[in-house]
Amino acid sequence: MKRIVFLLIAVATVAGVVAFTASASGDADEQASPIYGVTIPAGYRDWKLIAVDQLLVPGKADQLRAQFGNDLAIKAFREGTIPFPDGAIIAAIHWTRVPSEDNNKVLAGPFPGAQSFVVGSPVNVQFMVKDSKKYAATGGWGFADFKDGKPGDKALHETCFPCHMPAKDRDYVFTRYANAP
Amino acid sequence: MKRIVFLLIAVATVAGVVAFTASASGDADEQASPIYGVTIPAGYRDWKLIAVDQLLVPGKADQLRAQFGNDLAIKAFREGTIPFPDGAIIAAIHWTRVPSEDNNKVLAGPFPGAQSFVVGSPVNVQFMVKDSKKYAATGGWGFADFKDGKPGDKALHETCFPCHMPAKDRDYVFTRYANAP
Repeated sequence: MKRIVFLLIAVATVAGVVAFTASASGDADEQASPIYGVTIPAGYRDWKLIAVDQLLVPGKADQLRAQFGNDLAIKAFREGTIPFPDGAIIAAIHWTRVPSEDNNKVLAGPFPGAQSFVVGSPVNVQFMVKDSKKYAATGGWGFADFKDGKPGDKALHETCFPCHMPAKDRDYVFTRYANAP
Repeated sequence: MKRIVFLLIAVATVAGVVAFTASASGDADEQASPIYGVTIPAGYRDWKLIAVDQLLVPGKADQLRAQFGNDLAIKAFREGTIPFPDGAIIAAIHWTRVPSEDNNKVLAGPFPGAQSFVVGSPVNVQFMVKDSKKYAATGGWGFADFKDGKPGDKALHETCFPCHMPAKDRDYVFTRYANAP
């Protein structure tokens, strides 16, 4: 009996190590964007805000959005530094835009007809990582688009740089810094 | 000649001190909200983001908005702490919402009919400062609304707390924390 238990533990341990190794390796590949190999930067939700915007694509997307920058990116935005320095990262969170019935009830008194829209659920998060050597072929930027923590496919990531091309004179960055009042 | 120069410097210095004192005192009054005495907290534009929203009051306001929290406020939001602790501050920047012709041109190719709206100019900034003793009569919150660095009048500030009353079960705070994807 003791021998059987030992054997089972040994098998379970080996299986566990194999499973763990496979999983760790799989995760590492899964969590980097195709083409660019960009992963989700730690703590980006707490980075300083660059700006907010709204996107409406009838029948496809109705979003409120926020862009964040790491310290290098924020400094460059404020000082108008173009191109952005290596190490700068821009993050963009996209949420669904939903009407707030709670807010509308409150607003109805003082502001008849007022409509408040708030963020619903997160849709995706995108990153631009500046590395002028590594990403020389794409304006010095590596791109990434994640949904539920998983990067989009290669076809999706092939659209990033061509789409950002029109903003070439602003180092391929569409977002402008939103000043405080 | 030496005596005249000395006298002039002395007069200038005294005048300077008087002018500085008057100005500092005047600014202090001007820059605090009526009723609550809340001033603009240093560095609030760099605080962590709570959420974003949109407000449309036909003919009156068309805005994109962002709420920021100091560390105490952010911690409370994330942990669902109600009431917010003393020292928590929430800031809300309101910008005009304007269509981005630049973005729309780019989007027109891949996303026909897409409409992008970005922030225009800053409209105002509002603050809620938690001090359960000082502001006991108004749910523990002191309010402030600034336009171009100057606080609104007393009549405006008399509307803050009554308007926030419906959110009493969330400690008078309308905004909910926007999670990352």
